[in-house]
Amino acid sequence: MALFRRLLGDVLRERRLEQGLTLRQVSAEARVSLGYISEVERGQKEASSELLGSLCSALDARLSEVLRDVSEAVAVEEAATAPTPITARLPVAASSASAA
Amino acid sequence: MALFRRLLGDVLRERRLEQGLTLRQVSAEARVSLGYISEVERGQKEASSELLGSLCSALDARLSEVLRDVSEAVAVEEAATAPTPITARLPVAASSASAA
Repeated sequence: MALFRRLLGDVLRERRLEQGLTLRQVSAEARVSLGYISEVERGQKEASSELLGSLCSALDARLSEVLRDVSEAVAVEEAATAPTPITARLPVAASSASAA
Repeated sequence: MALFRRLLGDVLRERRLEQGLTLRQVSAEARVSLGYISEVERGQKEASSELLGSLCSALDARLSEVLRDVSEAVAVEEAATAPTPITARLPVAASSASAA
């Protein structure tokens, strides 16, 4: 199952690295402990809505953008883990043969 | 500030009502207490990632869709609360007058 906090952590870390910021810098800017941010980035702790807002501000990102990125990452996992329809699993040749 | 849990609650309630489901039905299906779901819908409690996954299953919704809806609702609030650029605040007539 696609876990929200894991993919949120991935997106937040990616945004931080894009900005060339260290955990320490984000921690100081967002006034959140470094350990907490680190756990959130690793998907080990849920981020409260307030923390999420502070992190987005510190990362100069809109919350809507972060959520859109997470939504897209979740969609990729959903597609990868969705059961393959049986028709997609049958090679064309085998399918024709069984129809003949 | 656009609070994630408030807009998530709105989206979850909307999805539930679209499906014609009661809190009681979702509670039974998701195996989560009715009170907890009710608080999440009202934006009073953070939903853990596991709860969010269970709620999406019970609502027959993909997590990616729910997050996309929340992202869009957040974007609407961001646009509404963004500072208006000074040019947009000047009436055309006043702007022409000061230019003359």
